[in-house]
Amino acid sequence: MIKVTVPATTANVGPGFDCLGIALSLYNEIEVEEIEEGLLIEVEGRDQEKIEKNKNNLIYQSMLKTFDKIDRYPKGLRIKQYNNIPLARGLGSSAACIVGGIVAANKLMGNLLSQEEVLELAVEIEGHPDNVAPALLGGVVVSCQDEGKTSYVRFPVHETLKFIVAIPEVELSTKASRGVLPESVPFRDAVKNVGKSSLLVAALMSGELEKIPYALQDCLHQPYRTKLMASLETIFSKAEKLDLNQLFLSGAGPSIIYLSWKQEEERARTFINLVNTMPEQWNIKTLQGDNKGTS
Amino acid sequence: MIKVTVPATTANVGPGFDCLGIALSLYNEIEVEEIEEGLLIEVEGRDQEKIEKNKNNLIYQSMLKTFDKIDRYPKGLRIKQYNNIPLARGLGSSAACIVGGIVAANKLMGNLLSQEEVLELAVEIEGHPDNVAPALLGGVVVSCQDEGKTSYVRFPVHETLKFIVAIPEVELSTKASRGVLPESVPFRDAVKNVGKSSLLVAALMSGELEKIPYALQDCLHQPYRTKLMASLETIFSKAEKLDLNQLFLSGAGPSIIYLSWKQEEERARTFINLVNTMPEQWNIKTLQGDNKGTS
Repeated sequence: MIKVTVPATTANVGPGFDCLGIALSLYNEIEVEEIEEGLLIEVEGRDQEKIEKNKNNLIYQSMLKTFDKIDRYPKGLRIKQYNNIPLARGLGSSAACIVGGIVAANKLMGNLLSQEEVLELAVEIEGHPDNVAPALLGGVVVSCQDEGKTSYVRFPVHETLKFIVAIPEVELSTKASRGVLPESVPFRDAVKNVGKSSLLVAALMSGELEKIPYALQDCLHQPYRTKLMASLETIFSKAEKLDLNQLFLSGAGPSIIYLSWKQEEERARTFINLVNTMPEQWNIKTLQGDNKGTS
Repeated sequence: MIKVTVPATTANVGPGFDCLGIALSLYNEIEVEEIEEGLLIEVEGRDQEKIEKNKNNLIYQSMLKTFDKIDRYPKGLRIKQYNNIPLARGLGSSAACIVGGIVAANKLMGNLLSQEEVLELAVEIEGHPDNVAPALLGGVVVSCQDEGKTSYVRFPVHETLKFIVAIPEVELSTKASRGVLPESVPFRDAVKNVGKSSLLVAALMSGELEKIPYALQDCLHQPYRTKLMASLETIFSKAEKLDLNQLFLSGAGPSIIYLSWKQEEERARTFINLVNTMPEQWNIKTLQGDNKGTS
């Protein structure tokens, strides 16, 4: 039997829209074995009732694309998914299924695909590298897609960095999240994001965490997407007034993440208190970065 | 007598508009001494005829602002400037004068200002940190200005990186260069620059130079500014067709820089040949990064 562990991921980290993803210490586990015939899918854990247990299952779909690519197929397949990553919350649950499925299928067939080929296939299925790259490789991944080619640089997440993840008990439609993005943006907003994202990458890579509060603001998607949910708008506006500058929308939301480290614990508590005043139920998880990736 | 050596700098490196600057191995030297009274300014070297030798001299002006800040003044001043950085070509000549002047004045008065205070004053005089920060600190500097505060991360330039600098014998007006920038940009252009600049910073910092060709394109200022000079437009368009992807406009131009390293020497020669077909005189200098900064 093949076992695969795959981390949650956060993408669009602060100003790093469409390019900056980080793997988190929250994991889905997948067990896979070849059986004589048919398809058996079992799901345990969070959101299990929402996960398809037939041929539409995303892990199975991703395994199938892997079998197609290497042109080898099992007779039948049993898949067991232990799900910890909440669905449709901006924490890379679909990336985890895609990467987990490909890696499991590849292992089952004798590891014919290299890590680069696994990544390429994952990007093809997901459509972009932001989440699948850190899900596979762990750490922080800065990635760009240009004319179908993905280029990336990966480096470890600083060990003292904590990710205080606040997950609301409501979903945000991906379609709505995409629909609110503008056709054009003020030149100064574009310039601001370029500078902040570049500074954020440099700060994360050099370990100069004290520079992060000056590097996390985004003008490209957060101001548009936070309008989709009243609590998001309230939290971001109150956080700004409270100088809680390490807050960002995870992926396309609705989860939000507050970055913290040793000297920042008190402000992190202020953030948690702020979230707890919202009308909906918010689930708070304190995670670390994951540097192993899928194993 | 005080001697100060200060490097040239390139800013707006590729997609890193307004945030990414690198110090180069081309230096101005400044000698300063206190005299009994008056102001004597001598200039030698490149563009000496264009440099003011009176109270409007930028080195003197920057020294004066330093004396004002620390509230100590020399009786009189002799300044000798050996100029190697060409004026108004996008290679940080004014940043070199400002940083050189402040550091010289500070040394003359017993180093009362810290390096951070020197940088702050230099940013105040120049208006932005892009050139003055690498001129002072050496290396690559990623900087952001927000509400008057400068935040930056500095790291060394990779030792094998070569900067093939092509300097035309014509100036480009800063006013014209600023005037052509748009009020707003397509969303996809903003996103592309964010991704490329973040990738470029990560590649420069990790030493994964082979990622640079995928990270140097800019949509925010180059397409607008290259239109100001026919040769620039021709060089960029021909370079694209020849897959010479490591080309960027230095600062606001008109100088251009081709980034090269060991495996790239042949393509660098193709770039030089391309520049040599232009109607104007272009001066080609092969420089390295400077990691010492002002000393």
